Amino acid sequence: MMLRLERDSRTPLYLQIRNQLREMILDGTLSEGSRLPPERKMAAALGVNRTTVVNAYRELAADGLVEGHVGRGTTICRPPLSSSPQSPTYLPPHPLVWSEYFVPRTEGSRDPLLRDLMALLTRSDVISFAAGIPAPELYPLDDFQQAMTHVLNAAGQTFLQPCPVEGYYPLRQTIARRMARRGATVRAENILIVTGSQQGLDLIARAFLRTGDEVVVEAPTYLGALHIFGAVGASLLGMPLDEEGMRMDVLENALVRYRPKLIYTLPTFQNPSGCTMAPRRRLQLLELAHRHRVPIVEDDPYGELYYTDQDPSPLLALDQDGYVIYLSTFSKILFPGLRLGWVAAPRPVIERLSQIKQLADLHCSTLIQGAVHEFCQQGALDRHLERVRDLYRQRRDAMLAALAEVAPAGLEWDEPQGGFNLWCRLPAGIKARQLMAEAARQRVALVPGEVFYPDGGGQEEMRLNFSYPPIAQIPEGVQRLGVALTALLKKRKWVEEQHDVEFAAQPIV
Amino acid sequence: MMLRLERDSRTPLYLQIRNQLREMILDGTLSEGSRLPPERKMAAALGVNRTTVVNAYRELAADGLVEGHVGRGTTICRPPLSSSPQSPTYLPPHPLVWSEYFVPRTEGSRDPLLRDLMALLTRSDVISFAAGIPAPELYPLDDFQQAMTHVLNAAGQTFLQPCPVEGYYPLRQTIARRMARRGATVRAENILIVTGSQQGLDLIARAFLRTGDEVVVEAPTYLGALHIFGAVGASLLGMPLDEEGMRMDVLENALVRYRPKLIYTLPTFQNPSGCTMAPRRRLQLLELAHRHRVPIVEDDPYGELYYTDQDPSPLLALDQDGYVIYLSTFSKILFPGLRLGWVAAPRPVIERLSQIKQLADLHCSTLIQGAVHEFCQQGALDRHLERVRDLYRQRRDAMLAALAEVAPAGLEWDEPQGGFNLWCRLPAGIKARQLMAEAARQRVALVPGEVFYPDGGGQEEMRLNFSYPPIAQIPEGVQRLGVALTALLKKRKWVEEQHDVEFAAQPIV
Repeated sequence: MMLRLERDSRTPLYLQIRNQLREMILDGTLSEGSRLPPERKMAAALGVNRTTVVNAYRELAADGLVEGHVGRGTTICRPPLSSSPQSPTYLPPHPLVWSEYFVPRTEGSRDPLLRDLMALLTRSDVISFAAGIPAPELYPLDDFQQAMTHVLNAAGQTFLQPCPVEGYYPLRQTIARRMARRGATVRAENILIVTGSQQGLDLIARAFLRTGDEVVVEAPTYLGALHIFGAVGASLLGMPLDEEGMRMDVLENALVRYRPKLIYTLPTFQNPSGCTMAPRRRLQLLELAHRHRVPIVEDDPYGELYYTDQDPSPLLALDQDGYVIYLSTFSKILFPGLRLGWVAAPRPVIERLSQIKQLADLHCSTLIQGAVHEFCQQGALDRHLERVRDLYRQRRDAMLAALAEVAPAGLEWDEPQGGFNLWCRLPAGIKARQLMAEAARQRVALVPGEVFYPDGGGQEEMRLNFSYPPIAQIPEGVQRLGVALTALLKKRKWVEEQHDVEFAAQPIV
Repeated sequence: MMLRLERDSRTPLYLQIRNQLREMILDGTLSEGSRLPPERKMAAALGVNRTTVVNAYRELAADGLVEGHVGRGTTICRPPLSSSPQSPTYLPPHPLVWSEYFVPRTEGSRDPLLRDLMALLTRSDVISFAAGIPAPELYPLDDFQQAMTHVLNAAGQTFLQPCPVEGYYPLRQTIARRMARRGATVRAENILIVTGSQQGLDLIARAFLRTGDEVVVEAPTYLGALHIFGAVGASLLGMPLDEEGMRMDVLENALVRYRPKLIYTLPTFQNPSGCTMAPRRRLQLLELAHRHRVPIVEDDPYGELYYTDQDPSPLLALDQDGYVIYLSTFSKILFPGLRLGWVAAPRPVIERLSQIKQLADLHCSTLIQGAVHEFCQQGALDRHLERVRDLYRQRRDAMLAALAEVAPAGLEWDEPQGGFNLWCRLPAGIKARQLMAEAARQRVALVPGEVFYPDGGGQEEMRLNFSYPPIAQIPEGVQRLGVALTALLKKRKWVEEQHDVEFAAQPIV
């Protein structure tokens, strides 16, 4: 038996021996049933330590190519390699069990409630109060197409090339100018373009959070934030809301007790509750953040969708010392399918988030950034906002009017001053989960409140979206909802009666 | 002093006491220098445990509002809140030190070499052999604009709405069909659309890797992969390449010794080396992965950019048992600014990556996906590929010819059969870092080899890109490079001579 060992190779000797023996077994030089030389003899022949040979034989045995028997030596036990060039391996098919390879995820499995809801939304006969997106029929398609054609015509090459990770500079300037109009003085250098505020949040989570870190959120809050913070293993502190927004007494308590890493808030036309944080609260929030030295993440997708005369400033506008990391997106004010949003923050934060974004996806589509910039430059975004503010206000009013007309006793709702959502509290004892099922039978969709809570709660609350359904469908949808709710109320009454009857009928033992 | 405690509030009693006292201090009800009641007295008055009051006073002291002195009690020491409504806080400006808030990053700081290189590339007088992107002047702009106009006209609403996280289904089908033509049988369900293979790699890193995990890479390899794997704290095992690609003996050794989590390879027209893994090696790689049960990540951005008659199949095409996670992108074959690529993998992998992508950015731009799908459907991608294969071959040949003509002795290079890059070994003792500096003076840019190595090495190697510079510039660029290299060689010789002279002139002590 000829083995050639290279003593200065990077491959250890035992592997060189194993590899060469394996070749000989697989190509038939060593036939099944024949024996390998005893370890001591082989070691002497090769001039290596006996352990080296023992290890080589062990590897072969582990691969099923030889068997060792005390007293009988080491026997070849595998057939040689098939001669077909298509199957150079003698290994039996053996797919990987992928789940063993994945990093375990800390977030819970997906709620079947959301799956059921998604299934419901694909049905064309359903009136949806469950969406979270703008009305497609209001999309400013012509203006956008014009902007797209313009950038492709004028500088197509440029807009199909890479751009800096922070984003297309003129778009960053445009966004900074728009924010200044809303009272928040930021420079283009403070803007990072991201693929929607979802990515902004994900980058923030990756930059700031580790497993076990505490994060303050509103309860209820944006579902995507719950998932992102959950996925990095953060522990969530849900702050109750009242009519002025996040409760500051509870927040202060949480800051003292848990020293959270971040405070996440949607202060304006909150999703899902529609609630807007009162000016006084905003100042208190900033003061508390300042005192406890906790950064605030302000998520503001709806701020420009106001339905009164008041154009609300973001929290960022009040921030003197740079505690606020601000997020917004074109998904609600323009098109959700574009995937374009931004972060406004102090430079050190922008730099860190940019480093992470560089790894995550290099930069956002240059073409999409160019087209949106052109769209804004043409004044099309302002025209569009003016138009949709009016139309969404009408939808909100239609929903409020319909609720006032058909709502059964015990249903309560808030009147949002902007945004997409209207928050309802159900009559006592009625679960939104049940109502969702009953409403599905009536061909109307809603989102049960509980999915928006970090830690239980919201079972008797629900979110109704009024931006997505055409205005003509809103009264009919609310009507159907009323039918569903009335059916549940009747059922509840019937169950109570039965309970009373049964109770009365029970013999007193 | 009037304090009102709510015993069933969620705010602990000590915080209620603290908050009310703080209010009184800040609004001046309690003036500076005055004293708080002794703890015991206060506790009795409020009907609470003394510890509760102690804790409340401690909080106030921590906030700098009171000072406690043994024997003198607790004294108010802060001025009241300013009465200006604009500054409701008495806190002095105190910006956050953001670096204290960031999760520490495991990757090293950015190489200044790369920064210098980037600065160089912005100069218009520089001929760049340092890019990694297709030639902008070859972009199929008209066809793409037509595709974009078509999707916006035909179904603009649809393409501006959200799409499933896995991607626009017809595009997934198109990609699956294109891959089948290259010998890899995958279904649309095995395709996940991502924003470039950069995102694909990042998702894979997030799905599979934790700090300290070992990952096999080629040495040299794709720079972005080094950064991504480094950022999750993985430890990299660099496999040397020979003319047939990754060395299998070293790989086997690494698999046995380090049990890596993943094997990352660019088997076809590798970036940066231009090397292609030989067919025999591909089978060995699959066998080793199979035997050691390690998934392979195949990165294949250049496979369709071949300059011989041979259209190379991806490794995936040989994979019988689903060990390969395949990545590719439209960045090299179409436009880098689009941000569109894909992963092809077994369903469990697609599902896991989709979950992570859902958190990361919901989905890729529906509009970009629609436009690229339409572009492929019109046959424009195939036409474009046929055209650029021819043109890039000409650029490669121009670079090879120029090198043959002007290269100083000792410079060696490989002849890549496809892709964008040509790999050179410098004459002994010449560092690519020095050459980059000297070449910058000659107005030509290259990438030093060392940036592509996971663990040192490559100091005397460099990457020359031939896809980006217009063909007319290539001879001139190579000429400049030759001048720079000759200058360094002369300098080396001079230094050696000086050394000899000095050495000879030294008195023998």
